[in-house]
Amino acid sequence: MSVITLTTDFGLTDPFVGIMKGVIASRAPGVAVIDVSHGVPAQDVLAGALVLRHAVPYFPAGSVHVAVVDPGVGTERRPLCVETTAGALVGPDNGVLSLAASVLDVQRIVHLTEERFFVSPRSRTFHGRDVFAPVAAALATGTPPSALGETVAEMEHVSIPAVRRDGERLSGAVIYVDRFGNLVTNVDATALAPLPADAVGVRIAGRVLAGVHPSYGAVERGMLVAVVNSWGLVEIAARDGSAAAQLAVGTGTAVVVERG
Amino acid sequence: MSVITLTTDFGLTDPFVGIMKGVIASRAPGVAVIDVSHGVPAQDVLAGALVLRHAVPYFPAGSVHVAVVDPGVGTERRPLCVETTAGALVGPDNGVLSLAASVLDVQRIVHLTEERFFVSPRSRTFHGRDVFAPVAAALATGTPPSALGETVAEMEHVSIPAVRRDGERLSGAVIYVDRFGNLVTNVDATALAPLPADAVGVRIAGRVLAGVHPSYGAVERGMLVAVVNSWGLVEIAARDGSAAAQLAVGTGTAVVVERG
Amino acid sequence: MSVITLTTDFGLTDPFVGIMKGVIASRAPGVAVIDVSHGVPAQDVLAGALVLRHAVPYFPAGSVHVAVVDPGVGTERRPLCVETTAGALVGPDNGVLSLAASVLDVQRIVHLTEERFFVSPRSRTFHGRDVFAPVAAALATGTPPSALGETVAEMEHVSIPAVRRDGERLSGAVIYVDRFGNLVTNVDATALAPLPADAVGVRIAGRVLAGVHPSYGAVERGMLVAVVNSWGLVEIAARDGSAAAQLAVGTGTAVVVERG
Repeated sequence: MSVITLTTDFGLTDPFVGIMKGVIASRAPGVAVIDVSHGVPAQDVLAGALVLRHAVPYFPAGSVHVAVVDPGVGTERRPLCVETTAGALVGPDNGVLSLAASVLDVQRIVHLTEERFFVSPRSRTFHGRDVFAPVAAALATGTPPSALGETVAEMEHVSIPAVRRDGERLSGAVIYVDRFGNLVTNVDATALAPLPADAVGVRIAGRVLAGVHPSYGAVERGMLVAVVNSWGLVEIAARDGSAAAQLAVGTGTAVVVERG
Repeated sequence: MSVITLTTDFGLTDPFVGIMKGVIASRAPGVAVIDVSHGVPAQDVLAGALVLRHAVPYFPAGSVHVAVVDPGVGTERRPLCVETTAGALVGPDNGVLSLAASVLDVQRIVHLTEERFFVSPRSRTFHGRDVFAPVAAALATGTPPSALGETVAEMEHVSIPAVRRDGERLSGAVIYVDRFGNLVTNVDATALAPLPADAVGVRIAGRVLAGVHPSYGAVERGMLVAVVNSWGLVEIAARDGSAAAQLAVGTGTAVVVERG
Repeated sequence: MSVITLTTDFGLTDPFVGIMKGVIASRAPGVAVIDVSHGVPAQDVLAGALVLRHAVPYFPAGSVHVAVVDPGVGTERRPLCVETTAGALVGPDNGVLSLAASVLDVQRIVHLTEERFFVSPRSRTFHGRDVFAPVAAALATGTPPSALGETVAEMEHVSIPAVRRDGERLSGAVIYVDRFGNLVTNVDATALAPLPADAVGVRIAGRVLAGVHPSYGAVERGMLVAVVNSWGLVEIAARDGSAAAQLAVGTGTAVVVERG
């Protein structure tokens, strides 16, 4: 049985997500809908793309993943379905699907043009309800992606800021801050390889943290610590506290990893 | 298979909604429960009624819609089930069900008096758990509304503030502010008919916006724009921003639509 | 059919809860997952334990209850499964399971050591995804607790601060504040028995409230009132308002119940 997942910046205060689920329940009764997150910062396409990329690998093959972070709703940006061997990605062509697509085996990109699959009449401000939810319901009930529109060659991409390597020194940045105030960087733990993890110093906001540790428990309560997080990335945390608050920093802040 | 929806002001911080779902899972195993919203402003019956009214049309026929915004819990206000041809509405008799009922074909209004369907013992502070969830479970598993209590003739109503028409001029108000800071008014887009949408001026908080547009993309980033929203109402938005913050206004703010 | 419930301090902004549900959907397809709460204050083990204890009785027998409030993730604290006649509790051995266990009939405590049930490779910062979700999926699909590790004799406990009785006088404290600003105390309503509820005075923050009432409706809008809440505990509320804001107090505040 197929599963539909939802990743949006709609929040849970308003009924937008509930209404999308109504459309799905009407058109694909019995199909399970799982919320990945609706707390993507408003209109932050890169954050939505990151969240989707790190969630998709944990879902069953054949899932339909809907991502709606869509500042261009109602403009010329195309609605897409990306067919992969692990399942389908559905959302606007603004890059929000691109990081997940980059770790999957993409078979086909479809521009969603077959309006008979949409809710009618269709608003120009809420394609989550009128385009993406009904298309996900169609996919989850067996409609092949190729029936939803014409195959296209390209899609838009967002990119994570690149890490610069200069000998043993890696220069990166904070790319995501979670609800605990943990600072997720773009430095992949595997990039540390030439240096033993305990010989590393992590510089951020004028501070130097000694070593990259396996867990928050490596330091005392309230202390800052660099760890390898659950996405395989270097993360700066404060044990039982908020590193973001303690350092007064956020996404974009420079991080340097070098011999400590 | 029936679906139960939940609309409350309980928020998702506390376990209240989860406990309601436990009662439903115990009494109606396998029935899907869908959250419409639990972010209705605390004890704001009109907001809850608006949310329910705009969500219900997107759910399958036969759904059971529970709405609990209930400042009078434990007082004399009656618990109700409103039977309609599209499904059942369940909640307190304070108007929260009335806007949804006004767009449905009401067959019967039942005062929920049959205590054998309630959780026992019944608290006087949490009828979501003790009255409305178990009644919804009973309805979703085939109990007819008429078995739940006595049929009554009337129910309480809330009303959306009326729009005043003076020739080509419509005077309305902001009735809902969503998580993006979009300002939803009580002016139905169909009421604009005598004027072409691009000849209209929308006045709010000392500003005049030219035209009512099909989508946010009609203006540059950060600019204010009036659109027809997904509920068919005139809405004032700031592209990629918050109109509520930019204008420093909220629900109740006057809005005038006239020849621009 | 089994149900899995989730109680965490992960919040719903990040995709952590969604990812746990992906693991469950992959390993226990078709099993319903119900959120009790993800709004437990960050790393507040006592609050998580309270929430779980008051939610579990409303779920069907055979449910698997996962609670992850886990400041010690990645350290030596043990992951546990507590087998009871009403279902299984799964989480870290830091007391978060202990209040629920205290009201259930415990059959066995298992230290989760059988790594073949975990997600591999296993991170040291996200055992919700890598240990507790897959173990819950195993339990919900029929794996007996005894297969998950070795039986142990003891588990960690948290305790609710004790109420001190001095003749007719009960000295307690606020132990939980809900989203409405209601102040939940540790004074069980049954402990009032020697005094008629209307002869009682409740002292908090320099105020004395007359009587313990059955519902918020006992007083006018905005007034403070002591009630017996849905957990059977004495609670101080402000009708249609926030007692926490009005009194500027929170958890830990002293409350005295005595002849008024």
